[in-house]
Parts: sequence; structure tokens; C-alpha cells
Amino acid sequence: MITTSSPNLQGIAFDAYGTLFNTHSVINLANQIFPEHGTQLSEIWRTKQLQYTWLLSLMGHYEDFWNVTKYALTFACQQLNLICTPAIEQQLMDAYNRLELYPEVKAGLKQLSDRYPLVILSNGSPDMLKTVANHAEINSYFRNILSADSVSIYKPAPQVYQLAVRAFGVSPSSIGFVSSNAWDIAGAKAFGFWTCWINRTRQPQEALGLNADLVIEQLTDLLVLLST
Amino acid sequence: MITTSSPNLQGIAFDAYGTLFNTHSVINLANQIFPEHGTQLSEIWRTKQLQYTWLLSLMGHYEDFWNVTKYALTFACQQLNLICTPAIEQQLMDAYNRLELYPEVKAGLKQLSDRYPLVILSNGSPDMLKTVANHAEINSYFRNILSADSVSIYKPAPQVYQLAVRAFGVSPSSIGFVSSNAWDIAGAKAFGFWTCWINRTRQPQEALGLNADLVIEQLTDLLVLLST
Repeated sequence: MITTSSPNLQGIAFDAYGTLFNTHSVINLANQIFPEHGTQLSEIWRTKQLQYTWLLSLMGHYEDFWNVTKYALTFACQQLNLICTPAIEQQLMDAYNRLELYPEVKAGLKQLSDRYPLVILSNGSPDMLKTVANHAEINSYFRNILSADSVSIYKPAPQVYQLAVRAFGVSPSSIGFVSSNAWDIAGAKAFGFWTCWINRTRQPQEALGLNADLVIEQLTDLLVLLST
Repeated sequence: MITTSSPNLQGIAFDAYGTLFNTHSVINLANQIFPEHGTQLSEIWRTKQLQYTWLLSLMGHYEDFWNVTKYALTFACQQLNLICTPAIEQQLMDAYNRLELYPEVKAGLKQLSDRYPLVILSNGSPDMLKTVANHAEINSYFRNILSADSVSIYKPAPQVYQLAVRAFGVSPSSIGFVSSNAWDIAGAKAFGFWTCWINRTRQPQEALGLNADLVIEQLTDLLVLLST
């Protein structure tokens, strides 16, 4: 745990995929469809999904996160020489609407929502976010679900982080941003948020000189540390 | 080999790293310094280097390619738990100035430069490009070396590809763009270039609906196919 100072936050914004929802909860289904390839498929799928958000943003060719996720699945199957029929694609894409929460997330959100206004701030399209949050029964903890789709560019573009500034009506330094994606933390830090990185798997930070203000291993540690 | 039509090109622009120069020619040195970790180090280094160009571009926090390459090396060593002293960092970064050409590149450039004006169009900083091209003795084949550094953003941002339009003074569709990086081909295709992907290792194309106009396995195939 690394902390720089105890901030006076007026609201907290959460990344969704990889932070609240485990994108690799598709592995079981993927293993049923493509025995022994589930883990690898899930890893390439996720890596490519992120890469496509950055590439399309830089090209100025925005497409929504559902399409990006589908393109990434197509690539992952091609790379592994797996035949992805329309029915299989549908099955795997549907799984993205039912991603599992990390085990401690619901308890963490419950604690934090008693003290702070919370929002989701995600690359996901509005429909995807609403569906997956409904399925996980965490909608009630959030005041708002903010989607990169409303500005047609993906994180870490500042326009996306700006959505939380508009939603809370306070300056970036009064907003806490929580993500498990190290690159997202770097982007949020560059934007000016107070940042908390949930590093569940003990990864190194990005080497960009834009480190998190607080590093924790599970969401339920955040409220305790904010209260000290 | 896939070709759509035989274009009437007024000039050809080449990506540098991964296309002319083999970024993995650092593996031997890396293996001497970190026995048995050279290949993995080189792979993470290159993957992270690209990721950082996209992330910093999207954040609006441009840093030149030398720094980006250094940050990526720092990350790669941290991820593999390798201790990168300043002397080791210097040694590995120096190797980036002496990257090897792919075996057929010099012959391919010689043939093409007799028929077309050629430029390099790369993310590399001007100093890096000049040094590595000098070392490989290919400078004389190029009219110009165009660097993303002059527009402070990286490929696939259209501003970078626009440098070749300015240099040749013709429309994008009259410019051939050659790269071994599938994502770079997608960006160049979105921009409007006629694109040639050197796919040396039989990878799948990006699943973005922005496929290369021509796919070859080595640069020396290009002139023959342009002449038919």
C-alpha cells in the first residue's frame, strides 16, 4: 500500500472492465467451446480490445465498445486458428453482458456509497454498462453511468475523464478515480484526478512517471484508508 | 499474396521499426545480459513501446521515441524482475541505434529507389532514425526521413501520415505505404494510402475492416508486383 496524502474527495469514479467486472470470467465458457484454448483466447481478446480502442481513437475512427469487442474476438479466434461461427460469436459476446464482479466489489461499493457519490466512468457503451451492472445488481450504488460513447473517443483521452468533472461539478483533484488498469491510472493521473489503483495481481506500475496516489489490493481497503 | 489493383504510385513511404529494422535484433545482447530472458524481454519491450506511443498520444502528453523506448525498457525489466542498472540501460538503448535490417531489405530498397522516390515515415525521433539508417547504410535510398516528432503525436494519428502527403505533394491514394505492422497498415489505409503489408510471419490482419491492398512476405516481391 502506497499513499501520498489523504484527499478530500467530493465523489469517486470507477472504471468498469477489469476493475469491477472480471473480463476473464469468460474463460469457462470459452473453454467449453474451445477446449484448452479458453485462457489464451480470453487474454488475446482483452489485449486486442484495448489496443483497438486506442488505435481507432487515434485514427479518428470511433466505433462503439460492443463493435470493438466483437472485432477483437474475431482477431483472437483468427490468431489461434479457431473457427468462430456466428452462433459462437453470439454466445461469447453475450457472456460479456454477464461478466462476474470481483469477489469483494459489492461490499466495497456498499461501504463507499454510504459516504461518497459514486459513478461509473467506462469505455463501455451505455447499453453494455447498463446490462452488465443490472445483471450484477450494483446499479443502485451509482448516481450515474458515464460512457466514453458520449464523446466518441476512448480513455486515456482527457475528454473521457472530463465527463466525471461535469457530472460531479468539482475540480479533477477533488475526484477519486479507481481502476485496476495501470494505463487508465496513468491517464487519470495526467488528467488531474486523485487516483487509486487496485493491483490485484501485483503488477508493476506503468513506467510513465504517472503513478497512482494510492495502491490497494482489494476495493474494500479503500474506505478504511480514506478515513485515516 | 493478395492484391486489389495495380496502382499508379508517385512515391513510397516506409515504416522503419519492425519493417526495415528488426527490433528483435536486440535479443542476442539481451540474452548475454539476462541469460534466457532475452526473447521475453525483447517482446515485452516492443509491445510496451507501441502501447506507450498510443497512450501518450491520446493523453496529449507526447514524449519523443527515445524516451518512450527507455520507459518501455524500464517496464519490461520490472515485469520480469530483472535489475536494469544505468549501464545496462545504456547498453540496451545503444543497441536500438544498431538494429539489423531484415535480410532482403537492402536489395528491395535498391530496386524500388530506381523507379520511385522513397521516404521513411516513422515514429522514431529524427536522431534515432538518422543514426540507425546510417549504421545500416540505407540513407542513400531515401529522399527524406519523416518523423512523427515534427507533429508531436504518433501513428496511427492522421497528422503523421499527412507528412508524406506534404513531402510528395500528391494525394494519399498516389502514395504507397509499406509496413510490417498490421495496426500501421490499418491506420494508413484509413488515411487513404495505397498500402502494402509485409507479413513475414504469417499473422492475421487486424479485424478492423481496413485491410492492406497488397500482402507480401518480403520486400523484394513489391517491385515485381507493382510492374505487372
